[in-house]
Amino acid sequence: MKFIHTADWHLGKLVHGIYMTAEQREVLLQFVQLVKEEKPDAIVIAGDLYDRSVPPTEAVELLDEILFKINVELKTPIIAISGNHDSAERLSFGSSWYKHSQFHLKGKLTKDFTPVKIKGVNFHLVPYAEPGIVRQLLNDERIVSHHDAMKAVVERIQEEMDPNELHVFVGHAFVLGGKTTDSERTLSVGGSGCVGAEVFECFHYTALGHLHSPDAIKHDTIKYSGSLLKYSFSEAKQRKCVCIVELDENGKVSIGERSLTPSKDMREIEGYIDDLVDPSFYTDQQINDYLKITLYDEGALMDPINKLRQIYPNVLHLERKIDRIDSRQKDEMEVRQQEKKSELELFEEFYQDMTTLPYSEEKKKIIASVMEKAKKVVESK
Amino acid sequence: MKFIHTADWHLGKLVHGIYMTAEQREVLLQFVQLVKEEKPDAIVIAGDLYDRSVPPTEAVELLDEILFKINVELKTPIIAISGNHDSAERLSFGSSWYKHSQFHLKGKLTKDFTPVKIKGVNFHLVPYAEPGIVRQLLNDERIVSHHDAMKAVVERIQEEMDPNELHVFVGHAFVLGGKTTDSERTLSVGGSGCVGAEVFECFHYTALGHLHSPDAIKHDTIKYSGSLLKYSFSEAKQRKCVCIVELDENGKVSIGERSLTPSKDMREIEGYIDDLVDPSFYTDQQINDYLKITLYDEGALMDPINKLRQIYPNVLHLERKIDRIDSRQKDEMEVRQQEKKSELELFEEFYQDMTTLPYSEEKKKIIASVMEKAKKVVESK
Repeated sequence: MKFIHTADWHLGKLVHGIYMTAEQREVLLQFVQLVKEEKPDAIVIAGDLYDRSVPPTEAVELLDEILFKINVELKTPIIAISGNHDSAERLSFGSSWYKHSQFHLKGKLTKDFTPVKIKGVNFHLVPYAEPGIVRQLLNDERIVSHHDAMKAVVERIQEEMDPNELHVFVGHAFVLGGKTTDSERTLSVGGSGCVGAEVFECFHYTALGHLHSPDAIKHDTIKYSGSLLKYSFSEAKQRKCVCIVELDENGKVSIGERSLTPSKDMREIEGYIDDLVDPSFYTDQQINDYLKITLYDEGALMDPINKLRQIYPNVLHLERKIDRIDSRQKDEMEVRQQEKKSELELFEEFYQDMTTLPYSEEKKKIIASVMEKAKKVVESK
Repeated sequence: MKFIHTADWHLGKLVHGIYMTAEQREVLLQFVQLVKEEKPDAIVIAGDLYDRSVPPTEAVELLDEILFKINVELKTPIIAISGNHDSAERLSFGSSWYKHSQFHLKGKLTKDFTPVKIKGVNFHLVPYAEPGIVRQLLNDERIVSHHDAMKAVVERIQEEMDPNELHVFVGHAFVLGGKTTDSERTLSVGGSGCVGAEVFECFHYTALGHLHSPDAIKHDTIKYSGSLLKYSFSEAKQRKCVCIVELDENGKVSIGERSLTPSKDMREIEGYIDDLVDPSFYTDQQINDYLKITLYDEGALMDPINKLRQIYPNVLHLERKIDRIDSRQKDEMEVRQQEKKSELELFEEFYQDMTTLPYSEEKKKIIASVMEKAKKVVESK
């Protein structure tokens, strides 16, 4: 049995106000090509197909297009569950029909724990569910945390499980040992959001979604494939890949990885603005990448983002590298000084920050007369 | 060929703040029963399956449940198109898979005008589309109105049409001759929103959705099935049904109707409040119906809606029967008189409107002293 494990496609994702749909389509077409080459027995998508419960229509059309290519055109069975970003109910629509062509989509956790059997391997589909939902579903008041919920679900699965057969768990959860990044929704810390890895001991392989790095957990049989793309600058240094999982008849697992590469990477660069816009620097760079730029410069800069975007059109985020505590102290001092300054002095500073022109005596006279007039208007009211 | 023509289910509809999902489910289960009895060769749903592009999840689950029962459990082919209330893209998701089991869902108008063939009959599926979309799709600048658009689409269909075969058109449009009601979105009047019935001459039967009354158009072969339920008080007197259409091999059509009945009807009643809450009146009534009540009473009434709801729990709308022009004139006169009245006189009127207790001299003294105190407080500020 060979299957490809992927997760966290987050179709319809907005990153710093930019829809990632074009990059998602690009990488998913590479994925379709990979399926064509690898000819796996199944594809496993471990949740978060969409980025939100009501995704934009472009995302809906993209998912339809890609799954159709894989499932119907390439006749490859698909196993998919919903994640915390998906709407279980909306994703479930039509799933009864998809089974005809071996597209097994489980949107909502139900009491039916029958696995999907492909080539003798049992795939146990467990979509994301809040502990409260599992508590109600299994009518077990002791379920409080995500760990309790997952443990109870696995116990139900085990009741019907033939230990002589092969078993793969497909789930969407924060399994202990993982490292989080910004682009995953903040989970409650202190244990209640986490699931202990020992829960999955009875499975030959556990295909997880939720954490975006393929290195989020180090384990021989429990694995996150990681997300389809980098969805946050905190993921800038992560590898992005899908896992090629081979399971022999004795239950021995071997995991390979294949990376998918969008034409625009997501990266961070830093330096002085003059260096960054210098051809000697940027000629080596993939200037179209999505960038977070950190500037070393101190003091005011004239519209730095537009200056940078003339070279790097896809700057998504700009930061200044100033030690935070120092800058806060400096700010406070400046405020105190400004309180003592006259409006004319403040304007002079503002003018010099904003322009490169000399602040002449003539200009000073003009602004002084404007200020005087304005004050009179205010006082007369 | 026998098929059932229905349309305008509007799943997820809110009427005066009440979700109609329970009634929709009730009537759709009757519909499933009807399909079981009639054993038609197909079901035709002529648009507006949902009430809006992002329907509530209960509506999504209901549609999934009902279509599964009809298509998979009862093995009945389904032909469905999107209406102006549906999201073409969202509804389309998965439609490629549904074809396996003869569920033909056309969400988006495309250049592919190939009909769906069932038992030798060609069904031409034309989902709702704005003229601008059709203009772009067919690359024909002359298309301005809905009539132009529909005419052009039908011409394309005719190009490929074998006149020796049987043809059924399935569309969602405002075909001339129809009467509108409140619950259909207001269409531009003056012709541009309408489509002339002559456009559909080449079809043996035209199954329409959009207008909510089965009597919206009088024609031998062009028919609106009407909506699943009454969705507005303007539809209170309309019949609600589905059409059983039989098409013989010579193209002769016979149309029967079968009504579906929710346990709560939508009706209007009127009278004096004392009569309406009198057992001699309401014992004959289906008191649980959704009601619009028009009261004949003049003058102020103490909380009439709650008084009525103690008998009729589902009053959705309350009106007072006062001739509008008269009441406006009366209002103006009252305002003029009130301007001349003292606060004490106004309070006396208010007290008498709001209570049934006598307005004693003692009460008058109390309120006079309260008013005096209040005035002093205001003046001292």
